Amino acid sequence: MIRVGVLGANGKVGRAICEAVEAASDLELVAQVDQGDPIEKFVDARTEVVVDFTHPDVVMKNLEFLVANRIHAVVGTTGFDEPRLARVRSWVDANPEVGVLIAPNFAIGAVLSMRFAEQAARFFDSVEVIELHHPNKADAPSGTAYRTAALIAAARAKAGVGPSPDATSTELEGARGADVDGVRVHSVRLAGLVAHQEVLLGTQGETLTIRHDSIDRNSFAPGVLLGVREIGGRPGLTVGIDPLLDL
Amino acid sequence: MIRVGVLGANGKVGRAICEAVEAASDLELVAQVDQGDPIEKFVDARTEVVVDFTHPDVVMKNLEFLVANRIHAVVGTTGFDEPRLARVRSWVDANPEVGVLIAPNFAIGAVLSMRFAEQAARFFDSVEVIELHHPNKADAPSGTAYRTAALIAAARAKAGVGPSPDATSTELEGARGADVDGVRVHSVRLAGLVAHQEVLLGTQGETLTIRHDSIDRNSFAPGVLLGVREIGGRPGLTVGIDPLLDL
Amino acid sequence: MIRVGVLGANGKVGRAICEAVEAASDLELVAQVDQGDPIEKFVDARTEVVVDFTHPDVVMKNLEFLVANRIHAVVGTTGFDEPRLARVRSWVDANPEVGVLIAPNFAIGAVLSMRFAEQAARFFDSVEVIELHHPNKADAPSGTAYRTAALIAAARAKAGVGPSPDATSTELEGARGADVDGVRVHSVRLAGLVAHQEVLLGTQGETLTIRHDSIDRNSFAPGVLLGVREIGGRPGLTVGIDPLLDL
Amino acid sequence: MIRVGVLGANGKVGRAICEAVEAASDLELVAQVDQGDPIEKFVDARTEVVVDFTHPDVVMKNLEFLVANRIHAVVGTTGFDEPRLARVRSWVDANPEVGVLIAPNFAIGAVLSMRFAEQAARFFDSVEVIELHHPNKADAPSGTAYRTAALIAAARAKAGVGPSPDATSTELEGARGADVDGVRVHSVRLAGLVAHQEVLLGTQGETLTIRHDSIDRNSFAPGVLLGVREIGGRPGLTVGIDPLLDL
Repeated sequence: MIRVGVLGANGKVGRAICEAVEAASDLELVAQVDQGDPIEKFVDARTEVVVDFTHPDVVMKNLEFLVANRIHAVVGTTGFDEPRLARVRSWVDANPEVGVLIAPNFAIGAVLSMRFAEQAARFFDSVEVIELHHPNKADAPSGTAYRTAALIAAARAKAGVGPSPDATSTELEGARGADVDGVRVHSVRLAGLVAHQEVLLGTQGETLTIRHDSIDRNSFAPGVLLGVREIGGRPGLTVGIDPLLDL
Repeated sequence: MIRVGVLGANGKVGRAICEAVEAASDLELVAQVDQGDPIEKFVDARTEVVVDFTHPDVVMKNLEFLVANRIHAVVGTTGFDEPRLARVRSWVDANPEVGVLIAPNFAIGAVLSMRFAEQAARFFDSVEVIELHHPNKADAPSGTAYRTAALIAAARAKAGVGPSPDATSTELEGARGADVDGVRVHSVRLAGLVAHQEVLLGTQGETLTIRHDSIDRNSFAPGVLLGVREIGGRPGLTVGIDPLLDL
Repeated sequence: MIRVGVLGANGKVGRAICEAVEAASDLELVAQVDQGDPIEKFVDARTEVVVDFTHPDVVMKNLEFLVANRIHAVVGTTGFDEPRLARVRSWVDANPEVGVLIAPNFAIGAVLSMRFAEQAARFFDSVEVIELHHPNKADAPSGTAYRTAALIAAARAKAGVGPSPDATSTELEGARGADVDGVRVHSVRLAGLVAHQEVLLGTQGETLTIRHDSIDRNSFAPGVLLGVREIGGRPGLTVGIDPLLDL
Repeated sequence: MIRVGVLGANGKVGRAICEAVEAASDLELVAQVDQGDPIEKFVDARTEVVVDFTHPDVVMKNLEFLVANRIHAVVGTTGFDEPRLARVRSWVDANPEVGVLIAPNFAIGAVLSMRFAEQAARFFDSVEVIELHHPNKADAPSGTAYRTAALIAAARAKAGVGPSPDATSTELEGARGADVDGVRVHSVRLAGLVAHQEVLLGTQGETLTIRHDSIDRNSFAPGVLLGVREIGGRPGLTVGIDPLLDL
């Protein structure tokens, strides 16, 4: 049993994580901390790993405390730029047995599908991305689709693969989608959807499609639990859950 | 057994139709005519239905002969505008027992999916169309996708349904596709594909997707055979295979 | 503005319907009744249409009262067999201006996809059904998939279409799915899914796929609102929402 | 320019490979050999790589000659068991600069999708496989689906992942598919399809789908060309194209 604590335990995400930890037979929820609670509770409860989904304003102070007290951390709080990562790295350098995982995206399916798309990209003549979301989304394409297309483009450039063939000579404006580093990206907005993405790869006579569907804000939970289980065995700073997936 | 003849029998399409007729247990291929052959062969062979996949230059003469000789016709030749249709109508008016079917598209799946999309359009908050083709296609969107979107838009306008909701405020140019009468259409061009189309309809908590995949130029054959079997019982001029589908 | 009342207003479904009615600009929620409340509230509030999602034990008494008071009814409560329908019919015969809609399924997408599958079934050589649900479902196939397959089989039998071709000679037990009146049905159970169904129809060189995805228990709401808007113009008893869809 | 020869050049597959080599700007087709032609033509033409899609009866003799003459080989001929592989290994041990690639499947998309499924399998609660083929196929499930399911099962067993959850208590026989080492496999047979496979992986709130569509017997060509380009840099015996994909 790993002894787990949660920071930001009363927030929507925090509550979901507390539930997920309690439902896991190999994890024990030993401490919950939110605004106003003393962070020392984690030490008193002999917490081994703390999950932090809080706020950019407080996360650095949290992490400094946790690392100094040799508690591993799994962090979903946003706002980590290179200077912040450098500071965290300096703390773990001083406490080399401690592991800190900072990840912008804990949805395992999203991370895997990006990685697979990147790996497959150079073996196909053509690649395009379709992302489909609920109609309240403000940006098109989604950040994930943009990153996916950029990763695909970089992998193809590195392998010396030319652009996807395209004989379009008459186009109704916008039909062929947006162009991200030469990769076409199409954004669908539809009532009844949540967050979905499809990478289509094609060559002579065959296509490969990698599709990710997320219908629940809690789709981060399995990725967080994976981080909790693995971070104890990965001292130092880990950025992104990719290294945990052994791809 | 229906006695069937084929005009343009040596062309690529004509040969495929001859094969399909011969493979059907309820049809008999009794005459084949191509350039240089006398069209009277159909009369001698007591042909009941002739299939015409020839050329706009000769099809009108063919049809005049067939109707005058009381032979039903199933026509896939292109180039029929309103004046041409009016002339055909005058011929069948003079021979009211004869049936002539002229259709721009014999792919049953394509016709059904357009019709279903049109019927369903007014019951959903959102509708978008994705069409996917081989990368040698010159136009985007495809003619079928354009017509499908226009039919959807007309059905929604008639029912008083407002535009699909869309909160997009930041768009990379083209991401949201082309706008056909208010319906978004996305065109994918990918090696390994042939001709595919997806209509996505969505409302609170549910989506309906109507997808058509065509991977073979022979996908017109089942529609042509349907026409051959039905046209004898449908005197007069029929335009499009929709009426044969009893939708 | 149609004046709408809700019976069973405090239940989970009832609350969702109250919210949906309040969110609709052409409907006004004028009365809510649950256990313990007098049903006469609907009369006092001059309610035009009442939605009933209650219990088989009380729904008949509710309906007798509503029809006698010339209030239209939209009913999602289960348990209607032929004798019950006959009694409702006798009540509306006595009040011929009143409309009553009783439907086992208000998910418009599900009803449309069943209907489209039924219409398309006779034009394709092959038809199979795949239904995909969350892993807590007890029955396989789902009731909807079973009904869909039975409707498809009946439509094909009526049109004299033979069985789907299948050359399978070596089968690992169960691979080819369940057999419902000659139509193969496959049941997938997967974490992360809710309720999904795909009807695949195929003929030479082309396939047509009709897919319905439901990710929310509230997917009945649009169908209920459709019933509320239409039932005033449809006196007598209507069973199922199909007639409202003008298919 | 790599100098390429083809063995079995007059067969259906051989002709397709000759065309693919000729179409590639970095490859030169310098010799074609079929039954009756002397295999020495490859030596005379200073061939660097020979592609062999012949017959189990002759492939061993071909390979012995090629390796002895220090010509790399890319082999799609079937029938390689462990004793045969051991003999080939002994030949390349004696000529260590020569590379021989023997692969049962050159469809890159199929190989990638199997590999991705294997990599992803342990991160999801549930996995199922759907394979869809033309109705003339004799076996169900397909060999590829069987192997895919077995690879998934082995990866999950190795990671200590339990069986996919399944609460089915009432099943129409066959609905839940075939059981391959605990992984459910569903086989669809449909006119209009060629060869398709979908691996569905699901966990709380999200699913990942890896789909491979093959619509052309020539879908082996890109994999063969990849082998031709890479084998010169990979001395020794390589079995399967996986190592060339750097996964």
